[in-house]
Amino acid sequence: MATIDLLLTNATVVTMDSNGTIMHDGAVAIAGDRIVDIGPSSELQARHTATNVIDCHGCAITPGLINAHAHVPMSLLRGIAADLQLDVWLFGYMFPVEGTFVSPEFVRIGTLLSCAEMIRGGTTTFVDMYFFEEEVAKAADLAGMRAVCGQSVMRLPTPDAPSFDEGLERATKFIEAWHMHPRITPTIAPHAPYTCTDEIYQRAVALCAKYNVPLVTHLSETALEVEESYHQRAGTPIEYADRVGAFKVPCIAAHCVHATNDDIKLLAERGVGVAPCPTSNLKLASGVAPYTKFIQGGVRTGLGTDGPASNDDQDMFSEIHLAALLPKGLSGDPTSMPAKQAFALATSSGARAIHQEHAIGSIEIGKQADVIVIRMNATHNSPSYSYSSDAVYNQLVYTCHAHDVRDVIVAGQLLMRNTQLLTIDEQQVLADARRIAHDINSFLANREENLLDKVLAISPVAASEIFEVQIKARITPEDARRIEAHVSTPPLHLIRQNSRTQYDTYFMWHDLTQGRIRLREDHRHDANGRTPPYYTLTLTEPATRIEHHVAVQLSRARYTAQANHTERFYREYFQPNHVVTITKERRRLHITYKDTEFAVNIDTLLNSPHPGPYLEIKSRTWSQRDATAKAELMAEMLTLLGINESTIIKHEYVDL
Amino acid sequence: MATIDLLLTNATVVTMDSNGTIMHDGAVAIAGDRIVDIGPSSELQARHTATNVIDCHGCAITPGLINAHAHVPMSLLRGIAADLQLDVWLFGYMFPVEGTFVSPEFVRIGTLLSCAEMIRGGTTTFVDMYFFEEEVAKAADLAGMRAVCGQSVMRLPTPDAPSFDEGLERATKFIEAWHMHPRITPTIAPHAPYTCTDEIYQRAVALCAKYNVPLVTHLSETALEVEESYHQRAGTPIEYADRVGAFKVPCIAAHCVHATNDDIKLLAERGVGVAPCPTSNLKLASGVAPYTKFIQGGVRTGLGTDGPASNDDQDMFSEIHLAALLPKGLSGDPTSMPAKQAFALATSSGARAIHQEHAIGSIEIGKQADVIVIRMNATHNSPSYSYSSDAVYNQLVYTCHAHDVRDVIVAGQLLMRNTQLLTIDEQQVLADARRIAHDINSFLANREENLLDKVLAISPVAASEIFEVQIKARITPEDARRIEAHVSTPPLHLIRQNSRTQYDTYFMWHDLTQGRIRLREDHRHDANGRTPPYYTLTLTEPATRIEHHVAVQLSRARYTAQANHTERFYREYFQPNHVVTITKERRRLHITYKDTEFAVNIDTLLNSPHPGPYLEIKSRTWSQRDATAKAELMAEMLTLLGINESTIIKHEYVDL
Repeated sequence: MATIDLLLTNATVVTMDSNGTIMHDGAVAIAGDRIVDIGPSSELQARHTATNVIDCHGCAITPGLINAHAHVPMSLLRGIAADLQLDVWLFGYMFPVEGTFVSPEFVRIGTLLSCAEMIRGGTTTFVDMYFFEEEVAKAADLAGMRAVCGQSVMRLPTPDAPSFDEGLERATKFIEAWHMHPRITPTIAPHAPYTCTDEIYQRAVALCAKYNVPLVTHLSETALEVEESYHQRAGTPIEYADRVGAFKVPCIAAHCVHATNDDIKLLAERGVGVAPCPTSNLKLASGVAPYTKFIQGGVRTGLGTDGPASNDDQDMFSEIHLAALLPKGLSGDPTSMPAKQAFALATSSGARAIHQEHAIGSIEIGKQADVIVIRMNATHNSPSYSYSSDAVYNQLVYTCHAHDVRDVIVAGQLLMRNTQLLTIDEQQVLADARRIAHDINSFLANREENLLDKVLAISPVAASEIFEVQIKARITPEDARRIEAHVSTPPLHLIRQNSRTQYDTYFMWHDLTQGRIRLREDHRHDANGRTPPYYTLTLTEPATRIEHHVAVQLSRARYTAQANHTERFYREYFQPNHVVTITKERRRLHITYKDTEFAVNIDTLLNSPHPGPYLEIKSRTWSQRDATAKAELMAEMLTLLGINESTIIKHEYVDL
Repeated sequence: MATIDLLLTNATVVTMDSNGTIMHDGAVAIAGDRIVDIGPSSELQARHTATNVIDCHGCAITPGLINAHAHVPMSLLRGIAADLQLDVWLFGYMFPVEGTFVSPEFVRIGTLLSCAEMIRGGTTTFVDMYFFEEEVAKAADLAGMRAVCGQSVMRLPTPDAPSFDEGLERATKFIEAWHMHPRITPTIAPHAPYTCTDEIYQRAVALCAKYNVPLVTHLSETALEVEESYHQRAGTPIEYADRVGAFKVPCIAAHCVHATNDDIKLLAERGVGVAPCPTSNLKLASGVAPYTKFIQGGVRTGLGTDGPASNDDQDMFSEIHLAALLPKGLSGDPTSMPAKQAFALATSSGARAIHQEHAIGSIEIGKQADVIVIRMNATHNSPSYSYSSDAVYNQLVYTCHAHDVRDVIVAGQLLMRNTQLLTIDEQQVLADARRIAHDINSFLANREENLLDKVLAISPVAASEIFEVQIKARITPEDARRIEAHVSTPPLHLIRQNSRTQYDTYFMWHDLTQGRIRLREDHRHDANGRTPPYYTLTLTEPATRIEHHVAVQLSRARYTAQANHTERFYREYFQPNHVVTITKERRRLHITYKDTEFAVNIDTLLNSPHPGPYLEIKSRTWSQRDATAKAELMAEMLTLLGINESTIIKHEYVDL
């Protein structure tokens, strides 16, 4: 009778083997990193002498849970921003914060925090995709977990690689360094078809093939992605991935929410593992993956949490719960996705999804000892029924939570015992996480208090302090025609002219000191019609006004950036108290008068109760003396153009 | 400076008041059953001397959660049966188990178990609907919780009332006894339009009006219910409820999953509170309630857990989580149901849904001191962000779980402190629950092992031990015509005859000792066509066979019951290993031969590879001697009818 390392006794053993074996009052024997025996407690206790015997009375022993898709370092960004459109969330929050804060230290601490959370929740294996992935690997190894670590690559600059070439180099070095590790599988993760190129996928596949590691990627997460893929890549993202060879190596495809029936056939034929993320897919409004079609179609199906910035936890019990509930609620068939099948998604089926079914996913002799002990006799999951083998799955899926996990073992090593973590200094990690979060919180707080910082966070801006003298008057259409004729008549000289339609959206706040933001879509008309519009975002801070006889002298800071997003994006990002839109037709006449340059605008507002037309005369200035001189010249011009001073108005269009 | 009872300090106070006030480093002062002060910790500590000061560093203080629909005693049936069609679940499991086990003791222990679970999960108020409701009220009072307790009434017999009259009497006594209680609101709960009558609703409304208590009912839970309501009650269940006066008193309507747009207007106009149950509605495949339409339409909207036999927990954090996720995932709009709005469903909005917004649902001076303290610095919900007021709602809704609740206070009384329950002997309740569950488990285990018990559980049966002699032969259509003519010719005498079409479904098991079950739909044809079919369910145990010369003598037990459910129901309930369907046209000729009565059947099988026709001659028997004599007579009849012995077959149709 050889001595074994660990004997778990007196539990309901839920093996998740292909026969669905369940043992009441069962035991599991572990030697080294393997399961060496399974059976009734009394028999195993008679058969083995163990260094460590753990009584699991009132508990279930199940395979460790497999999180098939995650971005674990993002636990540091948990709860940072939610309930936003994807672009606002990504461009407004994630990219600015990640661009500023993601570093090897960030990745290390975020990973340790996630490992602590995942171990506490019974997850023993995870598949990751992030930056500085060697830090994820190191931290996961330290924590004793099993992981597939995918170094992200894409065609855009990332926090750890200014170009794909450098990203590929990072990934190659990383895989070379780690590919012999017993628990950590290093790999490369081309982000998604819409952020990569054919070449990126092809070179990533070649790398995976060389080292015999799986390829990790995102496919068909949103309906929009699929729609754009049809146009840009002549097929679904899944068809595209097949075409560029991504399925020639074992592939782990996250999401696949919008897989078509043909895609599902393809995924099954190619043996691709899919990892829908129920919480994230709902929260980001991507939809609900076709779970039952995947299973019926023979696809290797797992479940993932996605990153904690879009979930916001890494709790596989939540994902199993949702995977069991959603197919019922949406199909109208309460028998779809029975509890046992849902539990398999995070165990036996999940192991197939990440191509490790030979080693993990079920409690069988010879397999890796990745097992967890779950308390089944707490108030919220009592009482227990055993008359039917289904009852234990009901209890696991519908009543158990992450915090019911008591002990966690990976490759024979205890990572948690009696809810105490054994491999991670949890208090230190929490303190480190709080420190980083504090810095990010300050960054965001400053930004939220200051519109300029908020603009700067999403785009480079051209800043300028503007001193301007201007005059504005309400005129008649006859005035407008007369002015057009007059500006070419000395002493006025027309330098150049153009016409444009300007669609302006003003974001304004109750607190006027914040300034206002104008989003402008500017269409210039030339002889051949409109030129392509250009889009600008302008932050204008409150002006200092000096009133001259008829003109007004304004000094104010203006910051202008190119606007790459939609009006809706900016509205959700800046969250103004009110929004005013103004569309105007503008004749712009650049003239000189007494050797001084002026812009003369003849504006008509469309869809306005005060359509005008209006005359605006403007000139930049730089000194009080210059401003006073220009204000004088403007008054003279007004007389020259035959405009009565009584028509002068002092408000801007948006304040009319 | 008067001494107050309780001061909670150093927390993020999430008031859920109408301004959405959040205080970082805030405090809440409690005297008697009321909140008497709210503000910065330092100010409140200076202003008050408290008997009990609780430091809530790292925690949030929020209003206690409101579970607006539950059947709390059913916690004892948690996980008992799941992933079944509603009828199988209800008629196959719930009704037989409830009919056998529900008693005042069951209700008391189930309620205490649920109260323990709910307090642990931060629920301070619940709305219940069950039987022996005075036991629910007593247990909830003992636990210190706030509750609306609805005594169920319906037109069917219930575990506590053989008829509605007795149910109404129970409810009246119950309300009289409890209606002055400060925390327990007793009421009557007409189950649903489809289980009640106009009169039941009208008398329940009158009772509620008399005692000024809200009416609790189920409305529009499933699409089928709404469809049937159109036919049977000329309108939706919600329109029907309005028509019978249910909305003349404050009403709490559970589910409303299939409320139409017109229903939503009606619910808002009448001030009806709705309580969708996200988990249960998904799990029973009822669907997803129109949460955002309710809110936009101004309906008083709460959330419920429903009974733990269909959930299977009573965790309001899960319900809030789902209520936040589902509208996003299904609408495609990630900004729908922001975290703050979802959290309101269980607090401020939930209080409106149960018509108690004057007293609970927010942390405001003068309101009842129903507050909970939630740890916000655990691994799975760290780090925290505070730069935006939304961040705390993100953390509460997307990362917090029931087990993060640390302290619970109802009406100023501490019910849980540092996760220790103070009003319930939890170990005793768990032991009691296990004892009852053990009995139910044995009942079900016996039943599952024994087909007869399983039949008995759903219907009364007529049992009979049957001794029968029979002969069966494959004949030709000419034989059949000849037999028809012959049976009226002496020595044979025709007594009576009929024709029928029998649609038989056999449920069979690998283990033949289990017997088999036949579901028969029998259509008798008379001169005017088919008579209404009748349906029977017959369990036949394995037969003892004695072979005579040509006849077979069988002795076997048969149990026949009226079949009230569909074939699908029985298939899912009995879970046979295989199912065989046989449709036959049967001419049945009752004859006498030598003063002995025989049944002569001429059968043709439809849609069968062995259509026949077949001749069957059968007779009941009671002794070996009689059987031998009848077997002789049958052999003679076969000769008389011109049937060759070589055509005799010994199998039943289902075994052909």
